[in-house]
Amino acid sequence: MTGSTGRDRLDIGIDIGGTKIRAVALDGGGAVVGSVRAPTTTGAAALVAAAESTVREVVVEAGGTVRDIGVVGAGIAGLVDAGAGTVTHAVNLGLGEEPFALGPRLGDRLGLPVHVENDVNAAALGAAQVLSASSVLPPDLAYVSIGTGLAAGLVLDGRLRRGSRGVAGEIGHIPIDPNGPRCECGRRGCLEVLASGSAIARRWPVDGQRSPVAELLAAAARGHEGAVAIRDEVMGHLADAIVMLALAVDPKIFVLGGGVAEVGEPLLLAVRSGLRQRASASPMLRSLDLSSRVTLIPPAPIGAIGAALAAHPEAGGEVELEAGA
Amino acid sequence: MTGSTGRDRLDIGIDIGGTKIRAVALDGGGAVVGSVRAPTTTGAAALVAAAESTVREVVVEAGGTVRDIGVVGAGIAGLVDAGAGTVTHAVNLGLGEEPFALGPRLGDRLGLPVHVENDVNAAALGAAQVLSASSVLPPDLAYVSIGTGLAAGLVLDGRLRRGSRGVAGEIGHIPIDPNGPRCECGRRGCLEVLASGSAIARRWPVDGQRSPVAELLAAAARGHEGAVAIRDEVMGHLADAIVMLALAVDPKIFVLGGGVAEVGEPLLLAVRSGLRQRASASPMLRSLDLSSRVTLIPPAPIGAIGAALAAHPEAGGEVELEAGA
Repeated sequence: MTGSTGRDRLDIGIDIGGTKIRAVALDGGGAVVGSVRAPTTTGAAALVAAAESTVREVVVEAGGTVRDIGVVGAGIAGLVDAGAGTVTHAVNLGLGEEPFALGPRLGDRLGLPVHVENDVNAAALGAAQVLSASSVLPPDLAYVSIGTGLAAGLVLDGRLRRGSRGVAGEIGHIPIDPNGPRCECGRRGCLEVLASGSAIARRWPVDGQRSPVAELLAAAARGHEGAVAIRDEVMGHLADAIVMLALAVDPKIFVLGGGVAEVGEPLLLAVRSGLRQRASASPMLRSLDLSSRVTLIPPAPIGAIGAALAAHPEAGGEVELEAGA
Repeated sequence: MTGSTGRDRLDIGIDIGGTKIRAVALDGGGAVVGSVRAPTTTGAAALVAAAESTVREVVVEAGGTVRDIGVVGAGIAGLVDAGAGTVTHAVNLGLGEEPFALGPRLGDRLGLPVHVENDVNAAALGAAQVLSASSVLPPDLAYVSIGTGLAAGLVLDGRLRRGSRGVAGEIGHIPIDPNGPRCECGRRGCLEVLASGSAIARRWPVDGQRSPVAELLAAAARGHEGAVAIRDEVMGHLADAIVMLALAVDPKIFVLGGGVAEVGEPLLLAVRSGLRQRASASPMLRSLDLSSRVTLIPPAPIGAIGAALAAHPEAGGEVELEAGA
């Protein structure tokens, strides 16, 4: 299909995060041909307006017009009803407790339907596409988002697994220690209260804008005993999350992402160390070779890319990526 | 396709358990048209001979001959390599530690290829077919096998999920209590050591051939304080297994099976009670309504039925059940 300018269709994905909105334009082959960032605004009306602006800007950056747009997809944190295009529990965006009709409202402003997807699911799809670009097999991975919270997105045998109630991958609220700290969900010892960015910030508080995980890992690398103990414990619990996903759904690879993963290689090494420590007690775990199956997110706007993929009309209810997609 | 007798093709499934071998013959529409049971024998040669006999017997019972057979599938406990037709770690069948070439050996005796599947995966497929017979949607469930061990089989959106290393659903070795008892796998507080049939037998030992879970639940129902405490703890850990599967993969329903589930309704009620107790602490868990999503296995030889389904040539590497299959 060609639009008014005679160019190929552009698929637009936007990733609405707590601090920024990222938009990308993909060409018919899935390549990123435009990318813009804008600060996130809080409150429903301002957020819809900001999202609209990023869509219009990225289309221009890609050399097209709104009439060239194929599909628009938006990824956002919270419990998403993809059919209705609504999101609830997106509290860190100042949207209140009621379902927020992001899809219909943004769609009205653009004059186009907008597909809404949970942000972690979108990032999982984006990671799957980027990482499997040269593979002969359909992507099969768990994307583990380590940010304020802890959650996973699953792309199993090329398909996004949303789950029957849309909570597949919500591993942050699985308890792994009955005597652990109280979690916001009401229970004790959930993975999120032990191994998220919030957990690290609580256990290794730092001043101002510095990154708690970067400071913690640096202090541990310098041999600070308290930092070593906290690092081993928290990173061990991230390893626990991976072991749990491995024995529950057994994805081929585990991709670490989210704000905490921006620290990069030191995080990967610490999680691998936690996995090896756990495998040392169990021949069965050793045979699964988990430490070599963990990787960092690729340097690409996977959340926005995945939001566009999730909106693709061919995908319908089930997003399915082919080998080498 | 019609065989030598002019009748429809028969698909044969056999379920090789620790105490018995069950074989079924399915007609072209998937209906059970023959069923036989035989005691399990230990040792590789005797087991292959016994499996061959059950196949030949069930074909005769279905009114056919070996030449009418479409496919043969065998479900067996252990780590299965479906491509090679081998199983390892099937130690309770006296097969030793080496991979046992069940598929090739049984296939040689029958003059037909034999597909080998993990027994819990096969039962999950069988449960999915039986339970979804009248559904308009593809089956989506976790089959939780509570026997000597604890493991799950996943049929997600109509597809059997084996996993990249064949361990999807091996939830028995996910630890949920760092201070729990030592598990055979080498780690502490795994679901299996807290909530399997072996765990019940250890905590509520009974004489001879009686069922520990039946005795435990009966004593608890009579108000025996020690039994109530053990029941609540063990059944609570089965609830933990279901919460974990719900937040990891979010299947539509959870089907309780395995030897422990033969006690029936009292088990279901106790697990539901554990789920409600856990939901009482968490609004998010309450919203998932897990207690109403748990059910008992249907009264059908699901292990053998699923073994036949897993062998179906159309299924190839991915077994896919359609709605109302």
